[in-house]
Amino acid sequence: MTVGILGAGQLGRMLALAGYPLGLDFLFLDASALTPGGQVAPILCGSFQDRGLLGQLAAKSEVVTFDWENVPVDALRALHPKVRIAPSVAALAVAQDRVQEKQLFGRLKIPTTKWSAVESLAQLQESVRTIGLPVVVKTRRMGYDGKGQCVVRSLEDLERAWEMLGTQPLICESLLAFDAEVSAIGARNARGEIALYPLSGNLHSQGMLRLTRAPYGGAALHALAAKYLRRILREFQYVGVLAVEFFVCRGRLIANEMAPRVHNSGHWTIEGAVTSQFENHLRAILDLPLGRTDPLGHSAMINLIGEMPERGRLLRAPGVHLHDYGKTARPGRKLGHCTVVATTARRRDAAARKLLKELALPIRIP
Amino acid sequence: MTVGILGAGQLGRMLALAGYPLGLDFLFLDASALTPGGQVAPILCGSFQDRGLLGQLAAKSEVVTFDWENVPVDALRALHPKVRIAPSVAALAVAQDRVQEKQLFGRLKIPTTKWSAVESLAQLQESVRTIGLPVVVKTRRMGYDGKGQCVVRSLEDLERAWEMLGTQPLICESLLAFDAEVSAIGARNARGEIALYPLSGNLHSQGMLRLTRAPYGGAALHALAAKYLRRILREFQYVGVLAVEFFVCRGRLIANEMAPRVHNSGHWTIEGAVTSQFENHLRAILDLPLGRTDPLGHSAMINLIGEMPERGRLLRAPGVHLHDYGKTARPGRKLGHCTVVATTARRRDAAARKLLKELALPIRIP
Repeated sequence: MTVGILGAGQLGRMLALAGYPLGLDFLFLDASALTPGGQVAPILCGSFQDRGLLGQLAAKSEVVTFDWENVPVDALRALHPKVRIAPSVAALAVAQDRVQEKQLFGRLKIPTTKWSAVESLAQLQESVRTIGLPVVVKTRRMGYDGKGQCVVRSLEDLERAWEMLGTQPLICESLLAFDAEVSAIGARNARGEIALYPLSGNLHSQGMLRLTRAPYGGAALHALAAKYLRRILREFQYVGVLAVEFFVCRGRLIANEMAPRVHNSGHWTIEGAVTSQFENHLRAILDLPLGRTDPLGHSAMINLIGEMPERGRLLRAPGVHLHDYGKTARPGRKLGHCTVVATTARRRDAAARKLLKELALPIRIP
Repeated sequence: MTVGILGAGQLGRMLALAGYPLGLDFLFLDASALTPGGQVAPILCGSFQDRGLLGQLAAKSEVVTFDWENVPVDALRALHPKVRIAPSVAALAVAQDRVQEKQLFGRLKIPTTKWSAVESLAQLQESVRTIGLPVVVKTRRMGYDGKGQCVVRSLEDLERAWEMLGTQPLICESLLAFDAEVSAIGARNARGEIALYPLSGNLHSQGMLRLTRAPYGGAALHALAAKYLRRILREFQYVGVLAVEFFVCRGRLIANEMAPRVHNSGHWTIEGAVTSQFENHLRAILDLPLGRTDPLGHSAMINLIGEMPERGRLLRAPGVHLHDYGKTARPGRKLGHCTVVATTARRRDAAARKLLKELALPIRIP
């Protein structure tokens, strides 16, 4: 049974590695064979718009999923009559547009920051007057890892933001002074079973996720996140893994964005939970029973960005798990991650601090 | 960095799946591409004796290992000047011959059953007189999963055994009334670091391993097994994972046989130990630091033999981990395994019993 995956990045690679033990085969479609996924499974090389290739993928696959939320929706719509697609194109389309995403959150009564859609400099100035500085200006589409966004603290910043981003439809959002950033990750299969992971706490710098710790926060926060996540899963009759990032502000959860796929902040589940997010995504899209999501301890996941530490040096740290995506090093590129799992949060933080020091990574654990 | 693997069975497949996250690539050599390993990594198809193919494997690999202990020693010796081989050909050669294996155990003062080498019916009759019935008669070479052996309880059995096996060099061993069968599995890297897993307890039927539970036995038994295992690892300046099967007889350990490779009775380490036997084999042969071998709870591994249970039915059991080797079903063929990990031995046994019942497998947990 073959699972087709649009996009052969590290997420696709980890999906395939989680799926081989289930007896599944994989087929990727991506622009290059020299991708993390293309190293571990067959790949069709070409454009996501290539109807011929999409047809081949559909013909060979039981179900098609994606490892990147910016897969062209039109391409998926063309595939749809030929093969099952999960998560649905409807969920993907919303996740591709920050305005539709905010409207969804609003409709489902999930709190967001103040925001407005912006298509002109005049609208941007008006938004800032209504929302109040500081704001963050983002492209509505195609932003990831902090790309396509600009923090505006003054009217001068405003001009600069417009110059940088103004060629595209934008969204202007209030910049929150938050206490923490967390992710809620869950899976739903076609028969409606839902399995939710414990919340994870995330540290970003320069727009990129650097560190995730899980479980994070108390029962009340977890229950609140679970309530919001379930609303979205049910809204779409969602099938697969969904990740929602929230800001924590004085005990409240403010939705930031959602990703209709396995998520970097869920990589800790490979060693840190009974069933990984990757396996549960596959179970969900194949309508298999979902696996248990209980944590196996206290996990920390550290992203390896820009250059890979020497393998032997990293593996010398007791209990560390390495995930090397097989990519060529390049500044700012996510090349891999590593995870430690400990019996207490304190031991986990101590192990993570030691590892961060040994790898000379400039991340401070609060 | 590519690891070459002679043999692309399920052990090779699980080595590759454990090695991809370390950023490694794999290249198999086996008779057919339709092997468990050939489904997850490139494969050179042909005979282990094909010098041309062996040369290609050597040229592309950093190190060559094997997933089957009956790889022809001559083929490996021919490879040796061109590429590093681990474990060593010397260790492999001993493991291929039950007589050399027994001699090794004797030399290292590791207890064995009474035994003698047999090349004629007269020698077999003499052996039985010396050792005393019951005995088990085995081919010196190429036996696995109970194949190539015959239990002899009477003089009639003796004739039958000779008719069945007498065309090959044999060994005659005293048949022990043992309390349990256990495996000791450990890894050693080139710089001499050793990491040992806790003992596992094994249940066989019809010569095949059906169930493994770990950890097994108390500290004294573990210490004794560790002492014997270290002797063998040091004897060969061994590099890689080594498995030794023992009988437990009133607190003593009687060595049965050794395998110079990852072992079926170590599959529980994938989910049940901090670092799996597969990852530690790769770390050892690449001279990387060995990973921690601590158990993460109490594990039971059940072999799926002859036919695969329906996937959805198996995955419905909470916390069960499936490993489907992607093989065609055939009576008596190992097609996969599944593992449960619990917080106590009692809970582990309860979960395993439930699973055995659901899968309708005729194994009784003592």
